[in-house]
Amino acid sequence: MPYPAPQGFLFSGVQAGLKASGKRDLGLIYCARPGLAGAVFTQNLFPAAPVLYDQSLIPLRDFRALIVNAGNANAATGAKGVKANLNMASAAAELLEVQREQVLTSSTGVIGQQLDLDKIIAALPRLHNELSAQPENFSQAILTTDLVPKLAQAQLNWQGKSYQVLGVCKGSGMIMPNMATLLAYVLTDAPITPDKIQEITLKLAERSFNCLSVDTDTSTNDSFFLLTSDPQAEVDSSLQEALFQSLLQVSQDLAQQIAADGEGAKHLIEVSVKQARNAAQAKSVMMSLLNSPLVKTAIHGQDPNWGRLLMAIGKGLVDEAPNLPISITLQGVEVFTQGEPQKFDYAALSQSLGKFEVSIEVDLKLGSAALTGWGCDLSREYIAINADYTT
Amino acid sequence: MPYPAPQGFLFSGVQAGLKASGKRDLGLIYCARPGLAGAVFTQNLFPAAPVLYDQSLIPLRDFRALIVNAGNANAATGAKGVKANLNMASAAAELLEVQREQVLTSSTGVIGQQLDLDKIIAALPRLHNELSAQPENFSQAILTTDLVPKLAQAQLNWQGKSYQVLGVCKGSGMIMPNMATLLAYVLTDAPITPDKIQEITLKLAERSFNCLSVDTDTSTNDSFFLLTSDPQAEVDSSLQEALFQSLLQVSQDLAQQIAADGEGAKHLIEVSVKQARNAAQAKSVMMSLLNSPLVKTAIHGQDPNWGRLLMAIGKGLVDEAPNLPISITLQGVEVFTQGEPQKFDYAALSQSLGKFEVSIEVDLKLGSAALTGWGCDLSREYIAINADYTT
Repeated sequence: MPYPAPQGFLFSGVQAGLKASGKRDLGLIYCARPGLAGAVFTQNLFPAAPVLYDQSLIPLRDFRALIVNAGNANAATGAKGVKANLNMASAAAELLEVQREQVLTSSTGVIGQQLDLDKIIAALPRLHNELSAQPENFSQAILTTDLVPKLAQAQLNWQGKSYQVLGVCKGSGMIMPNMATLLAYVLTDAPITPDKIQEITLKLAERSFNCLSVDTDTSTNDSFFLLTSDPQAEVDSSLQEALFQSLLQVSQDLAQQIAADGEGAKHLIEVSVKQARNAAQAKSVMMSLLNSPLVKTAIHGQDPNWGRLLMAIGKGLVDEAPNLPISITLQGVEVFTQGEPQKFDYAALSQSLGKFEVSIEVDLKLGSAALTGWGCDLSREYIAINADYTT
Repeated sequence: MPYPAPQGFLFSGVQAGLKASGKRDLGLIYCARPGLAGAVFTQNLFPAAPVLYDQSLIPLRDFRALIVNAGNANAATGAKGVKANLNMASAAAELLEVQREQVLTSSTGVIGQQLDLDKIIAALPRLHNELSAQPENFSQAILTTDLVPKLAQAQLNWQGKSYQVLGVCKGSGMIMPNMATLLAYVLTDAPITPDKIQEITLKLAERSFNCLSVDTDTSTNDSFFLLTSDPQAEVDSSLQEALFQSLLQVSQDLAQQIAADGEGAKHLIEVSVKQARNAAQAKSVMMSLLNSPLVKTAIHGQDPNWGRLLMAIGKGLVDEAPNLPISITLQGVEVFTQGEPQKFDYAALSQSLGKFEVSIEVDLKLGSAALTGWGCDLSREYIAINADYTT
């Protein structure tokens, strides 16, 4: 990691035996002093037990710890699951000598199976003993079908002081977050006020995790937390704006890492929509492109089949005149302009689509709104991951 | 075919050379007397040239013929494509000695390539000579990635008379129709009035092709036509109701055939949503299940992973309280009841998911609206079809 972790935070990640693979599956973020937590959660109407619990506490003014398990989502587990989650929070609070109401929880994994609380309680002392300023073990403990851990950093230098921003997240499948994504934590030691933290969290989500889709599915456990170890009653407005840019950089970096590690992904796809009438229209067209299986398979096959891009754009546009004179650019090559197909070197563009990063730009020529988002291609491996195993 | 074709209609389908495979690719429906045509079309905002042309004529009171080509969608082809479509209609009209305005057109195939009109014009005399009351060659000529032709029939006996209803359609990929589906024709010799035909066509679409999704993508060419060879100024209302049921039976049969022949499909999935608050809610939940890649891959893998069903239902519900006490039934086995998971024989249900037809029933317990729709599983073959070839 190029920078130190934000001051005041400690991390750990251990093996509790919840994952059949035997990998790390229990993680802890500890705040050495009372911090501040904002969060946004899944809009799925079957939210997991930890989501319901966290929603009752956010924004949390005296945040001290967040405990996360992987291998089990604690979703669709009924009253028993709610109780298990509360017990997980209580046990962590007792060990850390803080109040239960200062502890947040997250779970991720299979939906509909009861949590094995005994395994978690047995692992808690090790989780406590291994706390350190290194977030790597924590970043591993929260993974499920992810192939790689996902960390991002930024440093903000402001009036002679240095502030750190650290992001950690997991996510690979069941990813089309709606107001949040599956387990993302962005931490800072820069000051944030309690009355602003939720607004900042929502704005970050809107331009990072909410511009992301691996497979159109919205999890029962999506949660995005913004944590600071330095809550303040007042913050200079220019520092707040500078901090927002650092937080956004880290959040967007994490969103791109999720798309790049999408289940079965061989390509990271970035879609930029320009000159839309408004943000909602830009998002509708962007998501229609990111979610289209025919666009995703064309890119997987390195096929510059721009007709499918046009199809997806036309599906995402609503309440407009047919056959608008839009422009479409694929890997820097303009393939469609002013309602007429363009001549291009098909073989060269196909070869260019062999790169890991694929860029699609759409200019709607209707207004001044713009938005960029991320997704991935659709491969046989996605089918294998999701048809051959229960995940 | 168990019944004769509706009186007054003749059909043909020949090889014009538009398909690289050399299969039949030009079809004609001819009405021996002035008929009546209603139609609904794609809501994609880049509609194909034939869609724009047909929209200007529908409802068509003196319908005489409909010419269809496969192998080229004539979509995103600009002004040149519009002209080619008009010339296709004119050439057919001249040969059949009818007015150009009495001829409808359809195209299906690759988007963004210019139509080879010369091949179509050269094949027109053969298309004319081969007209007969047998719809089989026509049903083959309109196919693209479909593996099988799709025909359906019903016979309506009413006050001593027999009326015939015949449906022919194509569709396998890029299938999530929005007000229509990709090339479906339902024909009858029963009387329909010009002022009712569009209303009947819309109602049929809403309960058949609009309850269908193979892969969430909406084509530029979706068109559903209702054709009668017996237009009348007035029709007995009880005959009209009986006829609607026959037309609906044939339309739903066609929609199921498209789902069953979805690209790469190994399973036909039927989703029934009951006791929804209203039709829009039933449709939202139904489509969320039919469109979820994680539900589709679970069924492909014969995995009774009902947590994914719950996830998709929770994504499709909006503006409701979390964790409603719904019930979910999979292949007749209730797997989730009143917010609590149910015990069931996992191995037996997995084996039952080996059947071609898979049924998912959701009881929302909120109101009295109900809706049934169709989709298919997601397999490696879908990826192969759409990543390895330009379609």
